[in-house]
Amino acid sequence: MDKIQEFVESNIDRFIDEMKDFLRYESISTLPEKKEDMQKCAEFAAEKMRKAGLENVKIFQTEGHPVVFGEKIKSKDAPTLLIYGHYDVQPVDPIELWHSNPFEPVIKDGKIWARGATDDKGQVFMHVKSIETLNATEGELPLNVKFIIEGEEEIGSPHLAPFLEEYKEMLACDVVLVSDTALYAPMLPTLTYGLRGLCYMEVEVTGPRRDLHSGTFGGAVANPINILAQMIAKMHDSQGRVAIPGFYDDVVELTQTERDNLAKLEFNEDEYKKHLDVEELQGEAGYSVIERTGARPTLDCNGIWGGFQGEGAKTVIPSKASAKISMRLVANQNPEKIGELFEKFVKSIAPKSVKVKVSSVHGGEPCLVPLGSKAVEAAATALSKAFGKETVYQREGGSIPIVADFKKILGADTVLMGLGLNTENLHSPDEHFDLNHFKLGVISSAYFMQEFAKL
Amino acid sequence: MDKIQEFVESNIDRFIDEMKDFLRYESISTLPEKKEDMQKCAEFAAEKMRKAGLENVKIFQTEGHPVVFGEKIKSKDAPTLLIYGHYDVQPVDPIELWHSNPFEPVIKDGKIWARGATDDKGQVFMHVKSIETLNATEGELPLNVKFIIEGEEEIGSPHLAPFLEEYKEMLACDVVLVSDTALYAPMLPTLTYGLRGLCYMEVEVTGPRRDLHSGTFGGAVANPINILAQMIAKMHDSQGRVAIPGFYDDVVELTQTERDNLAKLEFNEDEYKKHLDVEELQGEAGYSVIERTGARPTLDCNGIWGGFQGEGAKTVIPSKASAKISMRLVANQNPEKIGELFEKFVKSIAPKSVKVKVSSVHGGEPCLVPLGSKAVEAAATALSKAFGKETVYQREGGSIPIVADFKKILGADTVLMGLGLNTENLHSPDEHFDLNHFKLGVISSAYFMQEFAKL
Repeated sequence: MDKIQEFVESNIDRFIDEMKDFLRYESISTLPEKKEDMQKCAEFAAEKMRKAGLENVKIFQTEGHPVVFGEKIKSKDAPTLLIYGHYDVQPVDPIELWHSNPFEPVIKDGKIWARGATDDKGQVFMHVKSIETLNATEGELPLNVKFIIEGEEEIGSPHLAPFLEEYKEMLACDVVLVSDTALYAPMLPTLTYGLRGLCYMEVEVTGPRRDLHSGTFGGAVANPINILAQMIAKMHDSQGRVAIPGFYDDVVELTQTERDNLAKLEFNEDEYKKHLDVEELQGEAGYSVIERTGARPTLDCNGIWGGFQGEGAKTVIPSKASAKISMRLVANQNPEKIGELFEKFVKSIAPKSVKVKVSSVHGGEPCLVPLGSKAVEAAATALSKAFGKETVYQREGGSIPIVADFKKILGADTVLMGLGLNTENLHSPDEHFDLNHFKLGVISSAYFMQEFAKL
Repeated sequence: MDKIQEFVESNIDRFIDEMKDFLRYESISTLPEKKEDMQKCAEFAAEKMRKAGLENVKIFQTEGHPVVFGEKIKSKDAPTLLIYGHYDVQPVDPIELWHSNPFEPVIKDGKIWARGATDDKGQVFMHVKSIETLNATEGELPLNVKFIIEGEEEIGSPHLAPFLEEYKEMLACDVVLVSDTALYAPMLPTLTYGLRGLCYMEVEVTGPRRDLHSGTFGGAVANPINILAQMIAKMHDSQGRVAIPGFYDDVVELTQTERDNLAKLEFNEDEYKKHLDVEELQGEAGYSVIERTGARPTLDCNGIWGGFQGEGAKTVIPSKASAKISMRLVANQNPEKIGELFEKFVKSIAPKSVKVKVSSVHGGEPCLVPLGSKAVEAAATALSKAFGKETVYQREGGSIPIVADFKKILGADTVLMGLGLNTENLHSPDEHFDLNHFKLGVISSAYFMQEFAKL
């Protein structure tokens, strides 16, 4: 056992007690009545950052909830790490499904149960404690560290990009470290090196100006639901590929190394199907499920509506039908460009018998930190050392839009060293966080700083 | 001017006053609080039937609202006519859009404005008055007349078929006369000799057992909305025909005479498109709009829903997506058989990656009274004589399910001698009925009895 491991082992109970205090704040960013809880939670985080040995700790007010900042600069020549996390949490509804008070943490089965345990208070707290550990064991940090904890991640980080812009110099860094993702499996050190982006569109098809009687008009006019369905059907080809012309033009194909890495991840298709209660999976031909969900772009309808949705029969030809359709993107697809291709395609396949309105709802860029980069190497080494096991590599299918902002505004890649599990009920009742992962996360974070400083 | 026309002319103001009284009853069958109004309205109708010279007038209680019956039997050898109409009306919402009280009839611009004016109190009242007219002018009716006015048409006539079954003998007849449809154009004598049937289905597609995050699972599982859309897209071929195997097998094709008749109906496609605000019409290739809406079967989605329908972006792959899909049928398609073909087809095109539930919501048989039949000839002659113009023939695209019941239970064809107009706001605010059509309707009804008795 090295000094870091020793220190963490002998202080872990105190770390957990402090984490419990952190989890007691009802920091639900979306509820206006929790504004004071948000402020107090930020103050708590600031206090813990100070105690860990960070300097210039400050709470920055934004137009929304505050951002906590702290730093410790070793020297001009040392590399600079920016750690990011968030102290805000999701609402707790439906509260009746919780087995304990979401804001009174409980330890059970080696896990800590509370809202925010895994997303993201527990995870961001690992880094506060790794800084404390390095300061305690080495007397200093091996590199320059900057640390921000924001309070609006669960509502889409509306004020983070402006904050990054405004304090660009203060936040200048070589790499960003975020722990807000999941391990591939319990006790399996996992490095996430890619995230998918998003292009979320809405399509509205208008046929006749008002709802019509299907007896009187059926056969004469285009039915916007049928037309919308036909258009959606044309969005995929028979191989499960997205059929929008140009859609794959900018896609960075998986390298053989990546495919080999992903193939190493244990994946039990039967269990997966059983868990989802489906008889067959479905996706793009020529790729494994892991590749399809993490490293390939996709198109899904997220919602559809039109006409009569009640009980029984109403014989109407509706005037309008709409759908929400989103595409998950991979590097180097650009959400705006994909949105334009989508709109062009939809309009090109719409018959003259209807009017079509296409609008962009939301977008987010994909990210990919190249395997072999310094940051990825350092993180993999750190995790392997902490867990005593070879690190596996994964690409996550979801999006973390701020990662693109770090790249765009600060010019820095992000290492996603998440220690959560997808089964830990984030955003759901009975959220929890494995305490063993917490401990190894503190150690991994300390090791990462050492490894990255070396390279 | 013959005796009938003379009598009607000199009594028309009284007829209209009596019709006003009929329209004052708030006989909304779907509202439980109008039960007493329904009963009183039935009593009023019974009283008017008695005064017109009908015998054995009686109010039959049903499990719902009462049916009013009356008859006048001339002789065993005379042909028997059954007249059908309904005294119940649609609700009046949205009441704020009415320009006068829906239950206080107003005469304006040669029309009577009130709920039920054209659908169907005003129209059924024409027959009460034609019986009175014949009794007054001829001292008797030219044939046996039976007359029922029901109170549940607007809620789907749930107790009419049982009533027909129970009183099959009392209601035995050679032909049924119904005025609950529309003229093709104002002052154009029109005979409707066909109605479309209906097969109304619901399809539910289930993918994964619960809603999934489209980032984590997009690419791995079938999305029930996309699948449903693909299935709907397969329901039509490129020629606008319904692509369900066997769908057209039982269709009675239009005869050349019918096509010639229908081609005589004035149809202004530009006005029609302008009215609907569509740039192009759409339907089955090889048929005119009038043929497509009246004499050809069709398939339309009446409703669709699944996933997220709110504002903004929710990146969900929903567990379920559903659609209401109905088919308008023509003679001799059978709703049950078509429902089975539909279900079989839907299941045959559903991929294994989803589960599909198909259910039947509602059905109704099409009807077609052959051109050249006694009833059609008599009605055409009557209308031409009353209007002084050649009668045109049309097939209506909607369904009147009771017509099939008359055929099935009583073995009688129905003549649809409607005097309404589709522009008279039936089921909408400001319902009205053209008083000239009312007057000519009374005369046409009397002529019809004379003509049908002759043949």
